[in-house]
Amino acid sequence: MSLYPSLEDLKLDEFIKTQNQIVQHNENPPPFMAICPPHPSGMDQESLNAMYPILNDYMGLELSILAQNNSIDIPSQNSQSKNNVVATPFQDNAVHVTNGVRKLVLCKDGKGQIGLKMSTFNNGIFVSVVVQDSPAAKAGLRFGDQILQINEVFVAGMSVDKVNKIFRECSVNNICVIVRDRPLERTINLYKDRAGQIGFQFKNGKINNIVKDSSAARNGVLTDHQLLEINGQNIIGMKDKQVVDIIANAADCIAITIIPVSIYEHMMKKIAPSLIKNIMDHSTI
Amino acid sequence: MSLYPSLEDLKLDEFIKTQNQIVQHNENPPPFMAICPPHPSGMDQESLNAMYPILNDYMGLELSILAQNNSIDIPSQNSQSKNNVVATPFQDNAVHVTNGVRKLVLCKDGKGQIGLKMSTFNNGIFVSVVVQDSPAAKAGLRFGDQILQINEVFVAGMSVDKVNKIFRECSVNNICVIVRDRPLERTINLYKDRAGQIGFQFKNGKINNIVKDSSAARNGVLTDHQLLEINGQNIIGMKDKQVVDIIANAADCIAITIIPVSIYEHMMKKIAPSLIKNIMDHSTI
Repeated sequence: MSLYPSLEDLKLDEFIKTQNQIVQHNENPPPFMAICPPHPSGMDQESLNAMYPILNDYMGLELSILAQNNSIDIPSQNSQSKNNVVATPFQDNAVHVTNGVRKLVLCKDGKGQIGLKMSTFNNGIFVSVVVQDSPAAKAGLRFGDQILQINEVFVAGMSVDKVNKIFRECSVNNICVIVRDRPLERTINLYKDRAGQIGFQFKNGKINNIVKDSSAARNGVLTDHQLLEINGQNIIGMKDKQVVDIIANAADCIAITIIPVSIYEHMMKKIAPSLIKNIMDHSTI
Repeated sequence: MSLYPSLEDLKLDEFIKTQNQIVQHNENPPPFMAICPPHPSGMDQESLNAMYPILNDYMGLELSILAQNNSIDIPSQNSQSKNNVVATPFQDNAVHVTNGVRKLVLCKDGKGQIGLKMSTFNNGIFVSVVVQDSPAAKAGLRFGDQILQINEVFVAGMSVDKVNKIFRECSVNNICVIVRDRPLERTINLYKDRAGQIGFQFKNGKINNIVKDSSAARNGVLTDHQLLEINGQNIIGMKDKQVVDIIANAADCIAITIIPVSIYEHMMKKIAPSLIKNIMDHSTI
């Protein structure tokens, strides 16, 4: 299973294990396994219905959709790997908040800028704005990254002015920065239902309603959380309509990155909304 | 490197890579590698001082202590694994918040109790109290776990009363519960310095001061966060003195689990302090 399983992944993983057990324990496989034409995912819809009628409409999702999304490898009786089948829909962990520590090397642009606005929260220094096409954006800094160290100087407890002064006094190249990956955020994996919905409503990026029995409800998305990323793409400052379009155009598996609204608003309170709208980097990292 | 690296792990990983590069690129290893008696970790202290004087007192920590803690395997020139040496001080990911979804099977005790108190936060249902020796404690439920589903019923948006009613109506055995692992918490790895300190002060479990240039400062521990676990052991409701003792008796690598105080206080506001002090489960999971 993925490192960051959704409830759907959990269910699918159980299904595959059950499937494998049946294949393993049945010396004579049921006839439909031999006579039915193969499903694109290697699984036949009618066979599924016959074997697992209740799973097929699990949580409003066609299991075949789940199976396609997850590239299930249904093992044959002779397959050597039949004990190792695992559902891994989100292979790309870069999308997910790791909370780990990493080291970046920054430089300044022609105007001597790094392209970063910061704020303090509980005596930590956090990235609030990453300017598009700036050295900070190119180095992969993101909203919510916690800056721990700049050129061997630890910044815990410092004011933003003091940290800005440290950056100003740095040379143009080889500014070594150690950051903790977005410690106050988390990523949740969701699946679109048949209508293409993932199951929450939002206004100005703030989640204000969870649709009953939707993927969002099943996976524990909370209200009063701010949407920050869709599949790793920063959407802060975008119009809600744009965000809806990004979700609509995404694949059926969607990873959303969120933060409690109170923390988000604290980090943004000194940043002009026009700045957030106009200069924020929206690239996918 | 560990999935949850501390800044010290990052530095150590860099050190090992540098070490490996030197060993790899040097056909004739420096003489001390042949004549010095082997260090317990495979690394000689004097050699280290000679080669990397600046690293040895990195961040107030003896590198040899770091090396011991991390069980470094310094490769010989002939070692086949010399490109794969990785520092992994915290192998036990059970200590760490995963944010993943997991399934538990609960039962009721002789009095028909599961041993659980819950609260709502942003339309989610969260575990506030796990009673010691209760079925909930034995199943591994923890403060901050988000309950998603009970026997095929999704609980998002429900009141605590309604969820309690669902539990009451469950049979005595085989209560299937799906939870998300502590979505609002995070774990940070710290190292004790020579004086045995990890670098923060707390009162009633609430972190209120970070010591400059300590492991806590280097790794981005924040104030206004509530201490929940030390190395996976729940310490909620314990006296500060007890927590200090637990830290003092722990190994040099310590994993602390924290949550913003505002969220903690919200989850605990309806729970009597005496209850928290007297019935909370403090076992290590």
